[in-house]
Amino acid sequence: MSGPAAPSSAHLERLREDFLLPPDRLYFNGNSLGPLSRRVQARIDEVVTQEWGQDLVASWNQAGWVDLPLRLGDKIGRLLGAAPGQTLACDSTSINVYKLMGAALDRTPERREVLIEQDAFPTDHYMAAALARQHPRIQLRTVSGGEMYEAIGPHTAAALLNHVHYRSGARLDMAAIQARALNHGVPVVWDLAHSAGALPLQLDACGVEYALGCGYKFLNGGPGAPSFVYVSQACQDRIDPLLPGWFGHARPFVFEPDYAPADGIARLQVGTPPIIGMSALDSAVDMLLEAGIEALWAQACALFDALMAGIRRRPALSAFDILTPAEPERRGSQLSLGHPQAWAICRALEEAGVITDYREPGILRLGLAPLYLRQSDIDTLLERLDTIMIEQRWREPRFQARRAVT
Amino acid sequence: MSGPAAPSSAHLERLREDFLLPPDRLYFNGNSLGPLSRRVQARIDEVVTQEWGQDLVASWNQAGWVDLPLRLGDKIGRLLGAAPGQTLACDSTSINVYKLMGAALDRTPERREVLIEQDAFPTDHYMAAALARQHPRIQLRTVSGGEMYEAIGPHTAAALLNHVHYRSGARLDMAAIQARALNHGVPVVWDLAHSAGALPLQLDACGVEYALGCGYKFLNGGPGAPSFVYVSQACQDRIDPLLPGWFGHARPFVFEPDYAPADGIARLQVGTPPIIGMSALDSAVDMLLEAGIEALWAQACALFDALMAGIRRRPALSAFDILTPAEPERRGSQLSLGHPQAWAICRALEEAGVITDYREPGILRLGLAPLYLRQSDIDTLLERLDTIMIEQRWREPRFQARRAVT
Repeated sequence: MSGPAAPSSAHLERLREDFLLPPDRLYFNGNSLGPLSRRVQARIDEVVTQEWGQDLVASWNQAGWVDLPLRLGDKIGRLLGAAPGQTLACDSTSINVYKLMGAALDRTPERREVLIEQDAFPTDHYMAAALARQHPRIQLRTVSGGEMYEAIGPHTAAALLNHVHYRSGARLDMAAIQARALNHGVPVVWDLAHSAGALPLQLDACGVEYALGCGYKFLNGGPGAPSFVYVSQACQDRIDPLLPGWFGHARPFVFEPDYAPADGIARLQVGTPPIIGMSALDSAVDMLLEAGIEALWAQACALFDALMAGIRRRPALSAFDILTPAEPERRGSQLSLGHPQAWAICRALEEAGVITDYREPGILRLGLAPLYLRQSDIDTLLERLDTIMIEQRWREPRFQARRAVT
Repeated sequence: MSGPAAPSSAHLERLREDFLLPPDRLYFNGNSLGPLSRRVQARIDEVVTQEWGQDLVASWNQAGWVDLPLRLGDKIGRLLGAAPGQTLACDSTSINVYKLMGAALDRTPERREVLIEQDAFPTDHYMAAALARQHPRIQLRTVSGGEMYEAIGPHTAAALLNHVHYRSGARLDMAAIQARALNHGVPVVWDLAHSAGALPLQLDACGVEYALGCGYKFLNGGPGAPSFVYVSQACQDRIDPLLPGWFGHARPFVFEPDYAPADGIARLQVGTPPIIGMSALDSAVDMLLEAGIEALWAQACALFDALMAGIRRRPALSAFDILTPAEPERRGSQLSLGHPQAWAICRALEEAGVITDYREPGILRLGLAPLYLRQSDIDTLLERLDTIMIEQRWREPRFQARRAVT
């Protein structure tokens, strides 16, 4: 087995029991939308019924709503290897890409080239292009993830990187890339959407300056949960926010016409925080902290190895291209399989009670989240996928029809 | 009584019964945070327990999550006098100010002067200043609400207006100002935070081009509920979004590296929509639509008139400056009272079971939302306020202490 030592399986089993997955379904899609737990359900009910319903505006003070973005940020920071005061829950991932890339570009006014991965998540391209229109000096250069290390140099104005790639599941070498970037004075923005909550990160130790991530994937915060941003202590006070809102003001309740940024990471707040969704995320993150991110990653590696071994053992599964590197340090917590009929195979799996997802072009993604998946689930997945491929069940017309959201 | 004809009081009473206000409390703070209803509570539970908990990612299609921002937008549009396809639920009010002011400034590249009210909500100042840094041609000019009509002219690049002012409750003449703006080719962004859900609006009929508002005040969407934007049909397709995100793409699930805006208002979407909070808002807006905004406004005018008459009748209440115009067409659905001890009076009212709020400098705000307030509540408010003023109860030290969120 790869990775660090095995977790306390009794403790993990108790946490697993808390998840409310539909009966007779296996959920391999936590890389897209993490599932609901009883604890999160109860917390939402408490926030809605008591804090909003009965305590109303008093909850801004007495339930601590006003500090929730910072308190939750610090908890997420513990999953990221970030000391307190550097992580903030806020807004959507897309908007946080804009904020942090704006901050990065302010650091290097004399440089022109902005690096972005050619296969980056689409919003990254769109936001980078939007910022390039605002900064006429900027030229965007797209390079592959593998070329990123070499591409970073003294001429680089900023780089926007997907730590774990949403399609392939491949992971960049954060320590090496960040060290090179620091050496050349290059501000790098790391998108942790597919690594936060999936694997241990060491943002402080790697010298990371800017990062952001998603609340609704491996963090299990619910559909459209708030995102988060990380800015290292040293980089915070030089940020003149591109999106200055009243909640990021030094004295929001004095209602001053002139903007004065709050100290530290709090200045990256914009509007009033979405309390219900943020409370759900807060409770979901508590469960990850209790499980321990090192323990979860060890378990995720065991699931991955079992899945890879099973695929290699079954001849019908050799039809898939394995797109994810096998070595744990080179990947996240998903296995991506390429096949021209991946869409229909994904639908056939769904009918067989196995929820996975599909991404263009021709990629079946299997998310491995040991907080609610067990080794026995890997065996079931393998059996059902094997049957679909042996019987070519994906040929059935009902599996071919496309729909709005894939 | 001012305003249009009285509503069906039986129907309104049935809706009132649905609100879950704390016992023995009167809630005059719906202009800050609207209260919870049983219907909204049940809808949140359904979205969490069934749609997220059991149906998981399939809910993007089968529960219509993917279109919720547009469907909800159209419902909000009915409260605004906006035909379908022009209103979208998304992001926070602050971020939507940025989006729409960005779109407005793109329209007038040859003009320099941006008008903003001197007492505008702080975020408006901050976002306008942030955009001015991006557009070096821009000069910000602050004028009072009363001077706004005259200030708009052929040299104006854009104007950002608070339709109903958050402190005074005074309302600008939308029809007159918008007509003058159209005459001079001036894009105006209307902030409807304190008018949406409180009074009937006629955005289409007034020729409004850009507007935005808040989901958690009179729309009762819950703490930090999503905001909304309105862009008239004619102005939509010329928008090149300042915040281009994957959810505003023409084909979001094809994951294209090049941005192609969705048709119409949908392009103002940025990241993944916050489904739980947006569903709460959706259900809350349904109740406003059932009550009828004309009927609610008629009832709000009756509450306002009763409150004003009561204040004038009681000598102890003459200590307050009445900051809100009495004429219904010149105000929103709040009464603002100025007093040097307004903070302590607000606290004393709270102890007496009447929830209001305070805004700097020295303003007691009384929000009047007939969806859950009755005429008898006005009588109770008047009695308790009268007692506090006669006994000078606000002098007690415990009412003087400040706290984080006012």
